[in-house]
Amino acid sequence: MGKIVYATRRERFNAAHKLWHDEWDHAKNVEMFGKCSNPNWHGHNYELFVTIKGEPSEETGYCMDLKHLRDIVEKYVTSKLDHKNLNLDVDFMKGVKTSTENLAIKIWEQLEPHINQTGCKLHCIRITETENQAVEYFGGE
Amino acid sequence: MGKIVYATRRERFNAAHKLWHDEWDHAKNVEMFGKCSNPNWHGHNYELFVTIKGEPSEETGYCMDLKHLRDIVEKYVTSKLDHKNLNLDVDFMKGVKTSTENLAIKIWEQLEPHINQTGCKLHCIRITETENQAVEYFGGE
Amino acid sequence: MGKIVYATRRERFNAAHKLWHDEWDHAKNVEMFGKCSNPNWHGHNYELFVTIKGEPSEETGYCMDLKHLRDIVEKYVTSKLDHKNLNLDVDFMKGVKTSTENLAIKIWEQLEPHINQTGCKLHCIRITETENQAVEYFGGE
Amino acid sequence: MGKIVYATRRERFNAAHKLWHDEWDHAKNVEMFGKCSNPNWHGHNYELFVTIKGEPSEETGYCMDLKHLRDIVEKYVTSKLDHKNLNLDVDFMKGVKTSTENLAIKIWEQLEPHINQTGCKLHCIRITETENQAVEYFGGE
Amino acid sequence: MGKIVYATRRERFNAAHKLWHDEWDHAKNVEMFGKCSNPNWHGHNYELFVTIKGEPSEETGYCMDLKHLRDIVEKYVTSKLDHKNLNLDVDFMKGVKTSTENLAIKIWEQLEPHINQTGCKLHCIRITETENQAVEYFGGE
Amino acid sequence: MGKIVYATRRERFNAAHKLWHDEWDHAKNVEMFGKCSNPNWHGHNYELFVTIKGEPSEETGYCMDLKHLRDIVEKYVTSKLDHKNLNLDVDFMKGVKTSTENLAIKIWEQLEPHINQTGCKLHCIRITETENQAVEYFGGE
Repeated sequence: MGKIVYATRRERFNAAHKLWHDEWDHAKNVEMFGKCSNPNWHGHNYELFVTIKGEPSEETGYCMDLKHLRDIVEKYVTSKLDHKNLNLDVDFMKGVKTSTENLAIKIWEQLEPHINQTGCKLHCIRITETENQAVEYFGGE
Repeated sequence: MGKIVYATRRERFNAAHKLWHDEWDHAKNVEMFGKCSNPNWHGHNYELFVTIKGEPSEETGYCMDLKHLRDIVEKYVTSKLDHKNLNLDVDFMKGVKTSTENLAIKIWEQLEPHINQTGCKLHCIRITETENQAVEYFGGE
Repeated sequence: MGKIVYATRRERFNAAHKLWHDEWDHAKNVEMFGKCSNPNWHGHNYELFVTIKGEPSEETGYCMDLKHLRDIVEKYVTSKLDHKNLNLDVDFMKGVKTSTENLAIKIWEQLEPHINQTGCKLHCIRITETENQAVEYFGGE
Repeated sequence: MGKIVYATRRERFNAAHKLWHDEWDHAKNVEMFGKCSNPNWHGHNYELFVTIKGEPSEETGYCMDLKHLRDIVEKYVTSKLDHKNLNLDVDFMKGVKTSTENLAIKIWEQLEPHINQTGCKLHCIRITETENQAVEYFGGE
Repeated sequence: MGKIVYATRRERFNAAHKLWHDEWDHAKNVEMFGKCSNPNWHGHNYELFVTIKGEPSEETGYCMDLKHLRDIVEKYVTSKLDHKNLNLDVDFMKGVKTSTENLAIKIWEQLEPHINQTGCKLHCIRITETENQAVEYFGGE
Repeated sequence: MGKIVYATRRERFNAAHKLWHDEWDHAKNVEMFGKCSNPNWHGHNYELFVTIKGEPSEETGYCMDLKHLRDIVEKYVTSKLDHKNLNLDVDFMKGVKTSTENLAIKIWEQLEPHINQTGCKLHCIRITETENQAVEYFGGE
């Protein structure tokens, strides 16, 4: 039987966003989202940790070459998020609130098909929004 | 079926404590607890990570407003610990050794009833005591 | 003669901005500012380190109560920057590019008169924009 | 029923290594391992996090005295890795590629018998190789 | 002419303290020192950065063997501070408030004669008390 | 008169090295360099902080485009150091001990002519070798 190892790659992106519900007036948005509802946006240095799991290859010692993982994350996720506006510029965030929770779910959906083709499995998407706040998503269960 | 996301809030508190067993003499306390038994106390900058789990609301994108989580943690835990003596000043630590392990268990017991009223569930209490030592408690199982 | 000590308080703010010159067309802005010129903004978790210098009081051991410094920084700087758009929302940034360099100069100008009333002197404004980039300003010399 | 707590001790070691397959020529090694195949080695500041689980003792409040855990890790692992060449100097790495994945598996195998004698159980070996890459091993499942 | 290099060694100590003026009543102490006046103490994980300057030796490439600096700091400073009460247990802190400012001045006074015997000069004592507060002392000027 | 701002770019490199004097025997090398004399090398994740100073341009708000600084550092320094052996692979380290002190001096000498052509001046080379040890070089004075 195999020996499953979990490997994590960190990537970073700097983006603007706001939390805002169009059907609510300004006062209700402020009540619900506080400072995060500033109409002119605010932003963050997000850190994204992508964890995959698999068995190390005897030949390379790798579950998966993390440079390959980096390229997948860059192509499908961080190139679309870095120095962007999460509400306006990102195709895969259309129609959902740009909370860190939703960002994690949507990044999972972007990455899972590509990672699962490699022989490894996507295990966790972790995003830190500030040093005090982070979310993790393991596919929903 | 829903999509469960884990969200973590970090809080900090600076406190004094010692590890000491009244029924042991000084030599036995030193043998068992080393430097941590200094009679005049020592102290730490503790970091507390509270992780809850739940489904993001469609309206807000949040599992739970982390400002609300912060207020619960402040009210029931960090206001009682910050700039205090864990052995002398903290009602919920009476009768147990002030190890980081016990601190995690007791903080869980303080927070669980209040967090579980919000629709989310408490998942993990993590405390770092120094950069080299940390504990996690998931409710005991 | 006295013993001068330097004391530093860290504050944080999360803001949106872009680097953009109205008199340049889009291509020239991209050439000069790269990803930082994204029209829909991007953002950062900025860290601000304010360093003052002075002699510790015999009575308190403090150069200056850092809670008082925190209040000055909050009132004149971070309340105006946190969860804001540096280009649109900040009175003291009007008319200058929102580079980290200019942000440091303008924060110095905001704080110096208030800090120098306390008996201490402002020594340094340090801002980290990302983990890879930081600036320091010591009043210009 | 008991209350299981997880406790983690961090240790550090600085080591040289390369990723290299003797049966491959230089070009194939570069293709597979990139910069990590430099014949004259390169190196890292590795961080090792050893997590054990157990019930806190009523007497001490500890799952396990982490100074004892530190001594076990020092004796069986870090004294053999620190300021060493992972390919040439380390008995327990003979015959496997010195990837971080394999390092985690082999450290687990070194530590598990000694930790499981203490009444606690080894839960996780986590190694960070750089700020962007980390692996975790939980015994293989 | 020589090439002066600055070298820094970090050490850590965990200690209890309070800020308290015996000649003031409880209310005045709280007014002046806030939470730091808790009668039963609080504590911190202090980080101490000792910076020396000198010319690297041609033979070793070192200004000073930092293991030797570590031993000096351990002997004269951290062994007296770690897991101690700064108000009660530390000979060189008698008679002054245990502010971080005073701690930096007193550590300088402890170390300077011993470091200046090595051919290098003490340049800076930096202490971080929390992630938000730090002081530096350069000998007073 | 102008307003001088200091700007810092961080780069990283992972390298192998040893401290070793060919004219000394093994015992003397161990006595002088301790674990750093391991014949089969060891290694580090070095962090390099390059600080330049200059006046922000009115047009861009930059002292110097830090992407340009990054390119200079990459071309003349980190491409020669990353995933290399400091003793064997690096042209500009020939003939000197590979201490962090000498590394800082030699990196200064590599960068100064190229940075001083940009209108800014090189101010400081800072290198961290481990979380406990760092050096700074300001050009020698």
